[in-house]
Amino acid sequence: MRTVDIIIKKRDGLTLTKQEIEYFIRGYTAGDIPDYQAAAWAMAILLQGMTPEETTYLTMAMVASGDTLDLSDVVDIAVDKHSSGGVGDKTSIAVLPIVRACGLEVGKMSGRGLGFSGGTLDKLESIPGFRTDLSKNEFLQQLGSLGLVLSGQSLDLAPADGKLYSLRDVTGTVQSIPLIASSIMSKKIAAGANAIVLDVKTGKGAFMETLPEARELAKTMVAIGNLCDQDVAAILSDMNQPLGVAVGNALEMREAIETLQGGGPKDFIEHCLEISSLMLLLGKRATDKGEARRMAQESIDSGEGFEYLKKLVEAQGGDVRVVEDPSRLPEAPLKSIVKAAQSGYISEVKARVVGETAVVLGAGRRRKGESIDPAVGIEVLVKVGDEVKEGQPLFRVHAHDQGSLDDARENLHHAVVIADEKTDPLPLFYGLID
Amino acid sequence: MRTVDIIIKKRDGLTLTKQEIEYFIRGYTAGDIPDYQAAAWAMAILLQGMTPEETTYLTMAMVASGDTLDLSDVVDIAVDKHSSGGVGDKTSIAVLPIVRACGLEVGKMSGRGLGFSGGTLDKLESIPGFRTDLSKNEFLQQLGSLGLVLSGQSLDLAPADGKLYSLRDVTGTVQSIPLIASSIMSKKIAAGANAIVLDVKTGKGAFMETLPEARELAKTMVAIGNLCDQDVAAILSDMNQPLGVAVGNALEMREAIETLQGGGPKDFIEHCLEISSLMLLLGKRATDKGEARRMAQESIDSGEGFEYLKKLVEAQGGDVRVVEDPSRLPEAPLKSIVKAAQSGYISEVKARVVGETAVVLGAGRRRKGESIDPAVGIEVLVKVGDEVKEGQPLFRVHAHDQGSLDDARENLHHAVVIADEKTDPLPLFYGLID
Repeated sequence: MRTVDIIIKKRDGLTLTKQEIEYFIRGYTAGDIPDYQAAAWAMAILLQGMTPEETTYLTMAMVASGDTLDLSDVVDIAVDKHSSGGVGDKTSIAVLPIVRACGLEVGKMSGRGLGFSGGTLDKLESIPGFRTDLSKNEFLQQLGSLGLVLSGQSLDLAPADGKLYSLRDVTGTVQSIPLIASSIMSKKIAAGANAIVLDVKTGKGAFMETLPEARELAKTMVAIGNLCDQDVAAILSDMNQPLGVAVGNALEMREAIETLQGGGPKDFIEHCLEISSLMLLLGKRATDKGEARRMAQESIDSGEGFEYLKKLVEAQGGDVRVVEDPSRLPEAPLKSIVKAAQSGYISEVKARVVGETAVVLGAGRRRKGESIDPAVGIEVLVKVGDEVKEGQPLFRVHAHDQGSLDDARENLHHAVVIADEKTDPLPLFYGLID
Repeated sequence: MRTVDIIIKKRDGLTLTKQEIEYFIRGYTAGDIPDYQAAAWAMAILLQGMTPEETTYLTMAMVASGDTLDLSDVVDIAVDKHSSGGVGDKTSIAVLPIVRACGLEVGKMSGRGLGFSGGTLDKLESIPGFRTDLSKNEFLQQLGSLGLVLSGQSLDLAPADGKLYSLRDVTGTVQSIPLIASSIMSKKIAAGANAIVLDVKTGKGAFMETLPEARELAKTMVAIGNLCDQDVAAILSDMNQPLGVAVGNALEMREAIETLQGGGPKDFIEHCLEISSLMLLLGKRATDKGEARRMAQESIDSGEGFEYLKKLVEAQGGDVRVVEDPSRLPEAPLKSIVKAAQSGYISEVKARVVGETAVVLGAGRRRKGESIDPAVGIEVLVKVGDEVKEGQPLFRVHAHDQGSLDDARENLHHAVVIADEKTDPLPLFYGLID
């Protein structure tokens, strides 16, 4: 087998065999196939596509490139969830305690934020002491004892994906559905999942800006699931405007806590109930959607979900007093309201601009490894479709210093569009693929 | 300007600006842009194409990446020729003395053979002492005094092209018309040409196997010429079967000598007259094709072309006695006839198989830098359309040892197809683009 012939085959739009894909990924991981050949291959894949079978072979070859976690001794069904990333998405922090309260054990590995998109680990770490660096043994032990873990990636899961992603980032080959789908699925499968709820965001603040793209990604991941015995459901959800009110780590942590206490913004509650229901269904803790939803709602109403959040924080070394009293979360010294410059109807709240403004404030990072400020962020006080009066608050900015506050205020004026005509609210979801 | 944005722009099928192309080639030549980005870019170009303007900017950026030769002090019009390569193509060795005898000075840089395709320098070096490594000064001096030079590439012409070509070779990005066209044109323009006759081969023994591909390459190069003030004519010529009779370095040298002495195979003579005419027209030594052709024929008939070959050999240190008496050329110890296994009509003489067999014999090289044997080769004794009787000679093999001779004979049995029905001869040319 010659590497260049595999590139040429894909270049010419032909279908690669399992052996060819395994050969490529094995060779690339081992360093036998150089970056320049992988770059040409990735561009050929981006422009010529891959069949669901090829994408599945690629997924499994990336799984085989590193460590894998086997959760079958600890849980009966390993249900995982994945969000394709967005602004204000603190869903996992609320949803995992909810489904655990409904009897579904979940051990989940999460990631950090990059660019305008936040990350669950950063949000959790706004609780003093909370550890996200559990070892494999700690992870398995806590999953066994508490039935609930939310930690970082301690193992070397799908290293081929990591290597390929870094290359794609600098060679214009990120935006390929088969490459994105296999990247997501390989990490979930390597982490031990056998059932996965995918929250595929679409809109101006998402990776997949258009609905057709998001739908294709969702379908591709469900197809991979079908081909490798994973039970996969993908929901298409809106990311034109931020999810919930809070954007920024401590602010989002607080919103997740409030939601588990029966408060929280309407759209975020609804999002959590939907994702929880799907997880309960895949985890066979409910037999239909209606039952699943009632169970999820009940675990909020009864306070059992909230109890599980406290147990999670305690198990991972966090200060539980902060969960009981969120005013103990880090708080920014400067707060400032951005007001509506005119009366009318909100026709856009640009999630990406809000996310980028959070980075300006110090809530996110431009490059991997940068430190962040847990306290800063933005409260988004309006939703598309709302009627506003001139002078009404649109955003509350939480800043560390006057300079970043001024920059943020300037940015946020461009984040909202106020129209004269009435505008419909945005839907939360655009469909389910399973 | 970010490199990855240029890759993405081409990936998305958009047209690059002059500045973007210059930035890329300059960065790649300097080593600031790594191979993996250039590989992704080349694959995007291959799959998305380039406009004639982009291809011209690429050509000129590659010219600017290295040395250039200015011949305007030495000749009034610098006419060059280029063949896209084939089997038995010794045209330059006969054509340059012919046009020189008609008053057109030519200083040409040639290359070596690789794979099944031969190279002019290898053929010239079958004459003992013949130097192909003239310095820039020697080149210019000889062009000034004799008006005729045929040497290797002493200067660092279009190094970006060399670097990019090596990368394309291992990343499946060789077969791109804009990349092939700019590669050819950049070397010719850097070598000082302002008028170029392109001999674009098509057929099973050519780089461009189909006529539409060859035509597109020819049109692209003529378009580049138009856009950068080069006078370019491209002729599409057949390379399904070998050109002339001789394949192999000393054998081809001998055929070129015989042709200048008024002998030589009919197809090769015709090919030389056609290329010579085009060069004389572009060099303004004739006002129409008829006149140009008569001049070329006359320079053979008068022996003046042959005299210029002797002067060329003498000027470059070769043993002129070999030109006067070609039996002094290196001769292989073993000769053997391959005979027709049946009677019928020749419907194919596979140029590529013949070329590859010449490599088996030692006449060519599989990798750059390998040494070759000037004496070995093949005489192709039949042409498509010929009637043959069982037992009639098809090839004469010139070998160095019995092993390679046996292998060559075995190969050559598959090089010819004999059909029962009459077959038309192949055309020599498929059209002219200027």
